[in-house]
Amino acid sequence: MNRHFEDTVAELDTPSGMRDFLPEVMQLREYAIETIKGVFRQWGFLPLETPAMERWETLAGKYGEEGEKLIYHGFNSGNLGDEPLYFSRKERPELALRYDLTVPLARVMAMYGHKLAKPFKRYQVQPVWRGDRPGAGRFREFVQCDVDVIGSTSLLVEAELIAATHEILTRLGFPDFKIRLNHRQVLRGMIETVGLDPSQESTVLTAIDKLDKLPPEKVRRELEAKGIPTAAAQELLRIVTLHPAHPDWPNFVTQLSQSPSGQHGLAQLTEILALLQAYGLPAAHYALDLSLARGLDYYTGAIFETIIPTAQVGSVGGGGRYDGLISTLSGGRVDLPAAGTSLGLDRLLTAMENLGLTTAKTQSQKILVTHFSEPTLRALSLRFTRELRQAGLAVEIYYGDNPFSPNELRRQLSYAEKKAMTHALIIAPDEATQGQVALKNLTQRQQLTLTFDQVVPHLV
Amino acid sequence: MNRHFEDTVAELDTPSGMRDFLPEVMQLREYAIETIKGVFRQWGFLPLETPAMERWETLAGKYGEEGEKLIYHGFNSGNLGDEPLYFSRKERPELALRYDLTVPLARVMAMYGHKLAKPFKRYQVQPVWRGDRPGAGRFREFVQCDVDVIGSTSLLVEAELIAATHEILTRLGFPDFKIRLNHRQVLRGMIETVGLDPSQESTVLTAIDKLDKLPPEKVRRELEAKGIPTAAAQELLRIVTLHPAHPDWPNFVTQLSQSPSGQHGLAQLTEILALLQAYGLPAAHYALDLSLARGLDYYTGAIFETIIPTAQVGSVGGGGRYDGLISTLSGGRVDLPAAGTSLGLDRLLTAMENLGLTTAKTQSQKILVTHFSEPTLRALSLRFTRELRQAGLAVEIYYGDNPFSPNELRRQLSYAEKKAMTHALIIAPDEATQGQVALKNLTQRQQLTLTFDQVVPHLV
Repeated sequence: MNRHFEDTVAELDTPSGMRDFLPEVMQLREYAIETIKGVFRQWGFLPLETPAMERWETLAGKYGEEGEKLIYHGFNSGNLGDEPLYFSRKERPELALRYDLTVPLARVMAMYGHKLAKPFKRYQVQPVWRGDRPGAGRFREFVQCDVDVIGSTSLLVEAELIAATHEILTRLGFPDFKIRLNHRQVLRGMIETVGLDPSQESTVLTAIDKLDKLPPEKVRRELEAKGIPTAAAQELLRIVTLHPAHPDWPNFVTQLSQSPSGQHGLAQLTEILALLQAYGLPAAHYALDLSLARGLDYYTGAIFETIIPTAQVGSVGGGGRYDGLISTLSGGRVDLPAAGTSLGLDRLLTAMENLGLTTAKTQSQKILVTHFSEPTLRALSLRFTRELRQAGLAVEIYYGDNPFSPNELRRQLSYAEKKAMTHALIIAPDEATQGQVALKNLTQRQQLTLTFDQVVPHLV
Repeated sequence: MNRHFEDTVAELDTPSGMRDFLPEVMQLREYAIETIKGVFRQWGFLPLETPAMERWETLAGKYGEEGEKLIYHGFNSGNLGDEPLYFSRKERPELALRYDLTVPLARVMAMYGHKLAKPFKRYQVQPVWRGDRPGAGRFREFVQCDVDVIGSTSLLVEAELIAATHEILTRLGFPDFKIRLNHRQVLRGMIETVGLDPSQESTVLTAIDKLDKLPPEKVRRELEAKGIPTAAAQELLRIVTLHPAHPDWPNFVTQLSQSPSGQHGLAQLTEILALLQAYGLPAAHYALDLSLARGLDYYTGAIFETIIPTAQVGSVGGGGRYDGLISTLSGGRVDLPAAGTSLGLDRLLTAMENLGLTTAKTQSQKILVTHFSEPTLRALSLRFTRELRQAGLAVEIYYGDNPFSPNELRRQLSYAEKKAMTHALIIAPDEATQGQVALKNLTQRQQLTLTFDQVVPHLV
């Protein structure tokens, strides 16, 4: 990203907007991904992976005009236009890099849906690519963690998606987060009850969606600019702030019940909230929020979004029910109800960093066994390396061929510290001849002497 | 791959040579990847990931003429040539998809090597893309599992790479495999002792590399066709079959010792073999094999390759020491000794399938909790789902909103069987009123009745 650096050693950088993950960061990413997948698996979801590339026709027309501009497409294989013999023009389809995990899921359902047990519950954790302008927290390659249920209209689906999200955030160590919950048909009911036409729904939702970033006054002006009458805009901005404990709530419910959509949506929300209580989710961690709209226009039922107010990273995930989308995306080949949620790995990790939740997570026990080239010392190092690994421990033997010396020992201990290892098993000449080794705890900076037989039991 | 199918529903297929991994296969892939990563971590390797795309200049000239033709490159982001505003020509570098994990590692060492603890031990498990002609076992997107040590010349490195490979194959359940071991300088010594010029090394290695696929007679003819005298070719084909237990071995060693390369290589091999013994590897699982050459020309020291003779998939992995490569790949920016090995995930999985090792691996306990819409039954289903998950078990509650009926129960049990679940916890009206549930073991087809309090202890 540094212009000067890019100019001087251009060929050594990653492409703009893309990142290397060095071990320190990568350990945390693997920890988070395994935590996320672990919950998905425990909830009965099964893994799916699709290729990085799709045929262009599969992605074309699926992401709107602005989205489509961001698709990486038109790859060639072959040296700078020099076509390999076996790629005839006919055989080489135009390709596009995966833009999200939903369109590939729809393609999979269209291709294999007939042989998959339904409801089909899959999780998918893979990178996607978007040629967006790189910026703070915005990358051209990023990992999505999606979980979807295809083929069920039960509200248990929504409740389970929210409960799984709750479990993931809890396991990642977030003490304080909130899952906001709303329903597209409640929003439609609100639009109807303030006297607006259903055709204005998209305009209203786009504006309301900005309420978490803009002051209500600005949103009201945007609504007016888009042709919404002042009274309706004001009433909308009033009712989106209501909640069940508010004195105006009963009136709102009565009003909303005049709209079949509103009534249906509110009944569904009420049941989902009851299910979340049955799941044992702490009340502080979820709430009905009538101002939640979510930008994408394919949602048809409940919608939800997770925020971590203290972490200042925006929404870390969200989803909802999208009963018509699989049909649309599959060109009408399959028509199944669906709901899902997506977690943003990068935002979750940034939130963990911002809240200081990262250090404890990757600090499992890691042992360096020192290694010196004297045959007796080497044999002992190999023995303990083998025995400790057999006991299931993470063990590294120092790679080097130097005889024992205080300097060489310092070099090896310094290496262990640079790699954030927790222990060093020091096999030194004097101790070894007495059948002893020293175990240094590198985090507590304590050292104790053990007989050979004590080493494994002490560390396991 | 089916032409007729491709023609009729072209836009619904994956690109040629690329695959969807449906849950059944994907569970096995995740199991294998976690097993591989688990051993790498236990051996003290740390994870690294690099972007799917590299700048074209990073990959150009690194894979030979034939390899370069297979690189996917020249992506555009932007709707079919319609450039998004923020991509000026200057800002948009030409991109290429990752072709292997070694060149990105060299780039990382050149960019960040100064701040990484050395030896730098990294593992990297990511897909690579090659526009090769698709065929049996040959795909255009496949996962490589690489592990490398940068910055140490110790032979412990080679021994540890081989020991880690051994541990991975053992954990994956292969009863019978062999790690073949040779040394590039032993091969050089052999070439010298049969009277050939060092300039013929590449020719000789390319031919010898084919000995595991072609009869010796054909290899001899290839050597002769490439200008190797008949006597030298015959002598080479004789000595590559020698091994330490062969009566001619002492003579071979004496002969080889006349070449400094041969002597050095043999001394290193001997030490590595001694180390493998110290690591406790069963002698049946590794062997010196003078006919192992490995195709790539960047190896400088020990080379090794793993085969599973009964699985008929060819080599499942291999590697060696390549002390000059990091310098070459980084354009001379860093010059560090290095050794590594790569495991082919697809071949390992094919081998597991061929040998019937797949079923046991993914059959962990998975429980379906039945769900019927009567409030009492629903509440019980939610309660057991929650309690069993809290106990760490993988639990799925059936998504549906139907009242209890024998037909509906059958539907739910059939779903559990389709998803290869191990148990169904059946919450039915009669039993529920007596404080009981039925637990059906779906693999053993046995059913028992439990009181509410017995459920969790019985399954944990």
